[in-house]
Amino acid sequence: MKKVSVIGATGYAGAELLRILHNHPEAQVVHITSESHAGENISDIYPHLRGIYDKQLISMSEMEQIGNDSDFVFIGLPHGHAMKVGKALEDKPTRIIDLGADYRFDDTDVYEAWYKVEHIHKDAPRVYGLAELYRDQIKDAKIIGNAGCYTTASILALAPLAKANLIDMDTIVIDAKSGVSGAGRGAKLPNHFPELYDSFKAYGVANHRHTPEIEQALTELSGKNTVLNFTPHLVPMSRGILSTCYAKLLDGVKPEQVDKAYEEMYGKEFFVRLLGRNGYPATKNVRGSNYCELGWHIDPRTNRVIVLSAIDNLVKGAAGQAVQNFNIACGFDEKLGLDVVPMYP
Amino acid sequence: MKKVSVIGATGYAGAELLRILHNHPEAQVVHITSESHAGENISDIYPHLRGIYDKQLISMSEMEQIGNDSDFVFIGLPHGHAMKVGKALEDKPTRIIDLGADYRFDDTDVYEAWYKVEHIHKDAPRVYGLAELYRDQIKDAKIIGNAGCYTTASILALAPLAKANLIDMDTIVIDAKSGVSGAGRGAKLPNHFPELYDSFKAYGVANHRHTPEIEQALTELSGKNTVLNFTPHLVPMSRGILSTCYAKLLDGVKPEQVDKAYEEMYGKEFFVRLLGRNGYPATKNVRGSNYCELGWHIDPRTNRVIVLSAIDNLVKGAAGQAVQNFNIACGFDEKLGLDVVPMYP
Amino acid sequence: MKKVSVIGATGYAGAELLRILHNHPEAQVVHITSESHAGENISDIYPHLRGIYDKQLISMSEMEQIGNDSDFVFIGLPHGHAMKVGKALEDKPTRIIDLGADYRFDDTDVYEAWYKVEHIHKDAPRVYGLAELYRDQIKDAKIIGNAGCYTTASILALAPLAKANLIDMDTIVIDAKSGVSGAGRGAKLPNHFPELYDSFKAYGVANHRHTPEIEQALTELSGKNTVLNFTPHLVPMSRGILSTCYAKLLDGVKPEQVDKAYEEMYGKEFFVRLLGRNGYPATKNVRGSNYCELGWHIDPRTNRVIVLSAIDNLVKGAAGQAVQNFNIACGFDEKLGLDVVPMYP
Amino acid sequence: MKKVSVIGATGYAGAELLRILHNHPEAQVVHITSESHAGENISDIYPHLRGIYDKQLISMSEMEQIGNDSDFVFIGLPHGHAMKVGKALEDKPTRIIDLGADYRFDDTDVYEAWYKVEHIHKDAPRVYGLAELYRDQIKDAKIIGNAGCYTTASILALAPLAKANLIDMDTIVIDAKSGVSGAGRGAKLPNHFPELYDSFKAYGVANHRHTPEIEQALTELSGKNTVLNFTPHLVPMSRGILSTCYAKLLDGVKPEQVDKAYEEMYGKEFFVRLLGRNGYPATKNVRGSNYCELGWHIDPRTNRVIVLSAIDNLVKGAAGQAVQNFNIACGFDEKLGLDVVPMYP
Repeated sequence: MKKVSVIGATGYAGAELLRILHNHPEAQVVHITSESHAGENISDIYPHLRGIYDKQLISMSEMEQIGNDSDFVFIGLPHGHAMKVGKALEDKPTRIIDLGADYRFDDTDVYEAWYKVEHIHKDAPRVYGLAELYRDQIKDAKIIGNAGCYTTASILALAPLAKANLIDMDTIVIDAKSGVSGAGRGAKLPNHFPELYDSFKAYGVANHRHTPEIEQALTELSGKNTVLNFTPHLVPMSRGILSTCYAKLLDGVKPEQVDKAYEEMYGKEFFVRLLGRNGYPATKNVRGSNYCELGWHIDPRTNRVIVLSAIDNLVKGAAGQAVQNFNIACGFDEKLGLDVVPMYP
Repeated sequence: MKKVSVIGATGYAGAELLRILHNHPEAQVVHITSESHAGENISDIYPHLRGIYDKQLISMSEMEQIGNDSDFVFIGLPHGHAMKVGKALEDKPTRIIDLGADYRFDDTDVYEAWYKVEHIHKDAPRVYGLAELYRDQIKDAKIIGNAGCYTTASILALAPLAKANLIDMDTIVIDAKSGVSGAGRGAKLPNHFPELYDSFKAYGVANHRHTPEIEQALTELSGKNTVLNFTPHLVPMSRGILSTCYAKLLDGVKPEQVDKAYEEMYGKEFFVRLLGRNGYPATKNVRGSNYCELGWHIDPRTNRVIVLSAIDNLVKGAAGQAVQNFNIACGFDEKLGLDVVPMYP
Repeated sequence: MKKVSVIGATGYAGAELLRILHNHPEAQVVHITSESHAGENISDIYPHLRGIYDKQLISMSEMEQIGNDSDFVFIGLPHGHAMKVGKALEDKPTRIIDLGADYRFDDTDVYEAWYKVEHIHKDAPRVYGLAELYRDQIKDAKIIGNAGCYTTASILALAPLAKANLIDMDTIVIDAKSGVSGAGRGAKLPNHFPELYDSFKAYGVANHRHTPEIEQALTELSGKNTVLNFTPHLVPMSRGILSTCYAKLLDGVKPEQVDKAYEEMYGKEFFVRLLGRNGYPATKNVRGSNYCELGWHIDPRTNRVIVLSAIDNLVKGAAGQAVQNFNIACGFDEKLGLDVVPMYP
Repeated sequence: MKKVSVIGATGYAGAELLRILHNHPEAQVVHITSESHAGENISDIYPHLRGIYDKQLISMSEMEQIGNDSDFVFIGLPHGHAMKVGKALEDKPTRIIDLGADYRFDDTDVYEAWYKVEHIHKDAPRVYGLAELYRDQIKDAKIIGNAGCYTTASILALAPLAKANLIDMDTIVIDAKSGVSGAGRGAKLPNHFPELYDSFKAYGVANHRHTPEIEQALTELSGKNTVLNFTPHLVPMSRGILSTCYAKLLDGVKPEQVDKAYEEMYGKEFFVRLLGRNGYPATKNVRGSNYCELGWHIDPRTNRVIVLSAIDNLVKGAAGQAVQNFNIACGFDEKLGLDVVPMYP
């Protein structure tokens, strides 16, 4: 049984962590924090937790104590804040799983360029927390930079093609769509219910911060410097991400090679559900679960491959992936706490 | 470990049973049936089950075998069909939990009058499957007539007041609202997506079949013949029922008596979440879980009590309640497979 | 051609007024105001107006000028503010249609008790702006207190029964449901998209401010002091109100008398669409239009009548009704600018 | 005043035509047809039309009479059926606006290859009904093949770039998203409310029939044979299409050239709303109206242009565009019946 704490427990990802950890047989939640709600009970902030987690939120200022009491801390803070926690826990055995961006980049210059903040923990011993690709490094990592939501969906979609050298890395376009929970719990006009209902729109075109994270992984996998277009959209729904990824197949690549690349990389992955060539993932098929559904299509007219990828942004895109990484880091069965049926309909 | 089968597994309640049973440590699903999809794989009918239940559906015509192989059968069939299963399994030790209406009524004349079919199993040894009220009888029942969705929300809301004799039983009005999954999976124009989206309407005014079921329970609890108005409405959402229940308090009844009635009946009930006087249940607070949230309000201007009750129609209103009843019938901890955090947001 | 101004044009009701007035052949919008956005262009606040109303918002502090330039002002301000405008325009010929509550009550003590503010314009020459009931008084009114959204749906539903003396006025229960646009455009956590999506809840039980407004009208119509229960609910959709109204029929009242009461009161009303006995209104049937759909049901088991009423809360419940009142006040055809087909689906 | 008939009036596009025509000062609806509902009243099929169009549906078999009585017929039939009407009215002066695909293609071989039916009216005197691009030809056309919904959004987005020769026509990817009304009114499981709610998915990847229609227009505009990827998705909402279009800019193309291309083509177009470079269209901004909103973004990292385009699929994507074409064909002001404010929120 591991003792864990959740730093920044009142965001949607933090609350989702609590949901998942409740059914984890080897995790015990010891502290939960919130700066804006310190002293309050989490079930007053999230009424669905009433009777399940009637636990007081404390402030991060008690980090010394939190570190002493916790084998692991999960961090659900806005970028720029997790690295402060990382620094503070530097000399403790406490291990860290950060759900934000602070520890996702190998090159902190890239982080600073896209996130517009100075990185204060550049030499942190860290690994990128996308379990299917970095499992071995996650095992012993001190700090795990949990992969982002859009990035998880997008990297899992394209990784087999990049690694097997089947696509032209200069032709990648990723058109992604997310439910509104991805925008967090802060009430703002653009996410006010009547503004979004029966509406659809893009945002962050050509400048969304998940772009360099996807590029980092695909560059590493393909061995080719990869620059791509990533366009996020807001779907009038609560949960789920669908990524539609386009790339030109290299000359002479056969459909069977594409199929094989997916089979080889994911054939034994519990959380990757291969729908095969011509398969159609849907976010509802994975809602509430840690699964990533993949389907791919080949257009002989244009010689493009179109890969579809669906996840629950709060689970495989955040809290579920964090628990998967936690399981790996603890040497547990990777499915612990995560082997559930998606909620349908 | 009990062997269970699901008769009529391709409706929403059937699929929800499979979802819950997957995480039940003492249940093993042996057979699943469907008449329209016999021979097909359940994961072709419900893609979210892929890799979890890749199991072939069989026909009910194999009931002899199903009975021999199963300690329990859960029935998710339209009314009028479950009683045929009940008859067929009469002489087997197999116990039955019917999610439909066939075994809910003490008086089969009432059933026949409202459901317009002849009852062919009038002497069935049965109990009404609303765990919080009939726990003792459920323990040894051969057949459990699982309470309906609207009725569960409504009876739990009013039972304490009826039992404690605090309200005028002639003044009850129940105004209930349900997500569209309550209407089943059959595609029909009224439930076609664009017809319901951004719309709200009532249906079944003064003639919905859950009316006599609520009346039966409240009559029994209060000892007074109870006739009431029940009005269902369709909410453009997927899951959840909210019941708003109105009744006149008897003269001289104090608010504290009302509070006490709820505390006494439900203070120790795991699945009933009391929000107290002036509490506001929301269906999202219980989504995906077996909880029923209750809040009550007293209007001194009219001397009415208004009780609000929220459940997930597919869980506490169907599959979850069935598993709760199964746990009771098996002598298991009532929470087995059901102790999960609601899915929020 | 009348010159009109909209005071408080950046709320949803204000924007809806601009939508309707654009197609009104006898109205010209001269000024639009906003305190928080004075100096900005309305189409920067509401992008759907781009190219249609590229007009600068001014401050209410220019009321002198606004009064001089306007035959009519429509007021879309929070309660407590419209009466300041009313006072300021007291000596001008400008006529006023207030979409808020300040001028809805005959008895300002009732207003002060429910709205918790002092009324500073108690002697204002005003009329209640529910066209179907107060048409004659509206014709020459200086100030029209436009009826509220829930109240319009509820009063129109029950008025024929109250006036014809067919129901027991002590037994009225109104259970109403509204789309989220009724809560205004202010971004707050409870109306944040993911919080409401796939959820349903009540609010304001036994204390919503539309209660005394409904009671005022029904008391006047019936000649009996009427105290009732009104419960509002939030539907996860954008527009629309459905009111479900319950009352005991007086002894001996025949269904045909009920039918006749509706026919007599509304048979010639353009904006009241009678679906008849056993009719089922739906908010989608009237969306974007000024229609009110009514259907009524009689339950012989309980001798209650259940009346269903559907409107678009922003049209017949706010801006459309205001324009209808404007037409009456100007002696125009009542349908001017309002004779449109609801938007379906 | 022109006499018009609607052939196939019970689909969503047919009903939307009736909505728009109700406020058209120069159109009078003489006949409406439906094969499945002939003899019924349209307001029994579409309750929102009650009291507005209480008109009997007739069968297409009365085409002789329909032709004699109508200056124009609008056709809202599935593909393969409109050409039968076109043949039947060949010798009459009646002009035709077909909302389906039968008359959209210059090359009927392309039609036959994608639609899998034989074209029986290959020599029909027809024009492609996308008003902004083919206005002159529409003026005197006998038959107008109204542009499709996805195609309208996509062609309007890319036409300026194609015509001004600014992009590499081999690099076009169109990722489009539509509300569910685009799938028609036929009730089928995939469009059953609970199946789509809180879900998002793609369909028709690499084989949707709007692909060749977009290619035809862009080939003609650019003078280069254009083959592209078009991927449609289903958004859990009722109305609206957003197209996200990607292409590589040709070497040396400056952002100002892109801006200028849009200004030149659409600067004077009433129904095209240019949001400019870095603009973000939203389907809600145009809901219920004939506007098309366009915004474009240039990514200097990849040298791609990303164009966003939003329409209401039932208006500019179907019925509104048909009326716009009708206005042009009649020599009326193009805005007649269409100059309305979008419905927001």
